[in-house]
Amino acid sequence: MTYSTNFSIEDLRFDNYGLIPAIAQDWLDGSILMLAWMNKESLTMTLETKNVHYWSRSRSEIWRKGATSGSTQILKEIRFDCDNDALILLIEQNGSGACHTGEKSCFFNEIKINQSDKKEKKTTPFSNICSELFN
Amino acid sequence: MTYSTNFSIEDLRFDNYGLIPAIAQDWLDGSILMLAWMNKESLTMTLETKNVHYWSRSRSEIWRKGATSGSTQILKEIRFDCDNDALILLIEQNGSGACHTGEKSCFFNEIKINQSDKKEKKTTPFSNICSELFN
Repeated sequence: MTYSTNFSIEDLRFDNYGLIPAIAQDWLDGSILMLAWMNKESLTMTLETKNVHYWSRSRSEIWRKGATSGSTQILKEIRFDCDNDALILLIEQNGSGACHTGEKSCFFNEIKINQSDKKEKKTTPFSNICSELFN
Repeated sequence: MTYSTNFSIEDLRFDNYGLIPAIAQDWLDGSILMLAWMNKESLTMTLETKNVHYWSRSRSEIWRKGATSGSTQILKEIRFDCDNDALILLIEQNGSGACHTGEKSCFFNEIKINQSDKKEKKTTPFSNICSELFN
């Protein structure tokens, strides 16, 4: 269940650097594309323009996603969590993908875990079902 | 595309507090359940036991998810991102849900954005399709 809320940026809890983590999720297939950071200003710019803006921790500047690459992100929905310190951005991803490597998602590295666990799968996981549906 | 990798925890980039953000995603329906934090020890315990352990920033202690509530999380897959500083945990959620409020997901608060944007939707978003499929 999702509740709409009368929202003020002041309700959010930013960390000691003035930042909040923002998870970008593909609004069509639900895949997680990236995790980046926002400050109040970049969040405000995102809400006002629908073009997702992050705070670049390496460059210490506001960063309009895709400004140079063309891989812009258009905000469709935005949610925050129960303790007000994390965001989900449901976005439409333009261009080749969210990742600077050219991959659709930044999370392309899988850590191998005990393979015996995989044998226990009795149902088709989400990623397979939605890949077939949307690709 | 996902690449399996020979993984060392030392390859990951933990922040100045020794922590890395971990996004818990339901392995069956792809919904994002929560964002929490791990240190090296809680990540190691998670990989060894398949029971997800986080670092509680409020209590400054390792926290086995669901230890008191029963809402444990069983690790199915784990990925890290292109700059090695964020994790996705694909998990099987036990109990009533991931959130201490009783909700399935901690991200139940939606921020209202310009409603004219919603009128532009021409396709059925992921959340609706997968709700129908899995619920």
